[in-house]
Amino acid sequence: MTSSRLEQQMAFVVEVDQLKSVHRQTLLIDRSRHENSAEHSWHLALMALLLFEHADTSSLDVLKVIRMVVLHDLVKIDAGDTFCYDAEGVQGQHEREARAADRIFGLLPEDQALEFRAAWDEFEAQETPEAQFAATIDRLQPMLNNFHTGGFSWKRHGIRKAQVQARNAGGKKGSAAVWQFGEDLIDEAVRQGILRA
Amino acid sequence: MTSSRLEQQMAFVVEVDQLKSVHRQTLLIDRSRHENSAEHSWHLALMALLLFEHADTSSLDVLKVIRMVVLHDLVKIDAGDTFCYDAEGVQGQHEREARAADRIFGLLPEDQALEFRAAWDEFEAQETPEAQFAATIDRLQPMLNNFHTGGFSWKRHGIRKAQVQARNAGGKKGSAAVWQFGEDLIDEAVRQGILRA
Repeated sequence: MTSSRLEQQMAFVVEVDQLKSVHRQTLLIDRSRHENSAEHSWHLALMALLLFEHADTSSLDVLKVIRMVVLHDLVKIDAGDTFCYDAEGVQGQHEREARAADRIFGLLPEDQALEFRAAWDEFEAQETPEAQFAATIDRLQPMLNNFHTGGFSWKRHGIRKAQVQARNAGGKKGSAAVWQFGEDLIDEAVRQGILRA
Repeated sequence: MTSSRLEQQMAFVVEVDQLKSVHRQTLLIDRSRHENSAEHSWHLALMALLLFEHADTSSLDVLKVIRMVVLHDLVKIDAGDTFCYDAEGVQGQHEREARAADRIFGLLPEDQALEFRAAWDEFEAQETPEAQFAATIDRLQPMLNNFHTGGFSWKRHGIRKAQVQARNAGGKKGSAAVWQFGEDLIDEAVRQGILRA
């Protein structure tokens, strides 16, 4: 017989399928369509596995980073994706997402609701090396996709270099090496004329 | 200055974006479109975090499971997705995928090429508790999506209960509890007339 705990966990697995229908401003590199938040989260998990050696802290808990990146966007099922350069949308974003976290993580058995919520809160607070490294790769991935699609969403929204730099700065604390790669990418994008100076 | 090692890793990050365009037979639960292999892999990573307590081995290394599920489908960038009930397609599948693994993991710095390839080989060999648990959730997730889309790909391909059971059996070694949940789901699908007896 299936336990009610397992039933509750499986209902959560079904619920989160919706993240695959939350779309982002970023295009896939093959330019075929916009990226969704589920596949974005997968890309970050792979980047965590591949790049954690570049974290500024040598004792990084990579499982903790992966837990954060796998869970960090679930709130967007209710709150939607807020474009990071949308100054109006960013207002109140945290409150919308915190309400979403209450509902979505609240679907889990209580111990896991607390554990998953704590991981999301830790990511949002940006105080631990793991949260900071998760932010580093969360900033870089859309920059890579924008760069390799000829600056698609930068051009579409008239984004300037200083805005992308300010956004990238949010990932500076996790890895100086990865952050520098992002800065170099921004400069190269300006040189190629796909990002406004 | 960015090291050539980091450049090589970033080229890999860009290359694997293609997994988002590898489509599967499964529909999203909202029935809007077919699922792709990148978001499927994300779903498995989340299931690993949520369900590893049900593994038959109490000492499961969940990071190892997550590494496997995040990487397990990268070979499909070259080899394409083989429908698990396509008897002809399954012929030669491992050889096609092993060639793909040679090329794709070969893009990485040598130590990581070996590490990622070893994780993929371990998943394919199905001998360790981690590989077996990864298979358990890899079998269950499409069953859940099929069940919650009225048996979409089962009906489309005229799949019978015995075929789904045989497929589910590949996940039996990882978790008796999760495997039983799958068996119950199959029975319920037959009762509801969305899977042929």
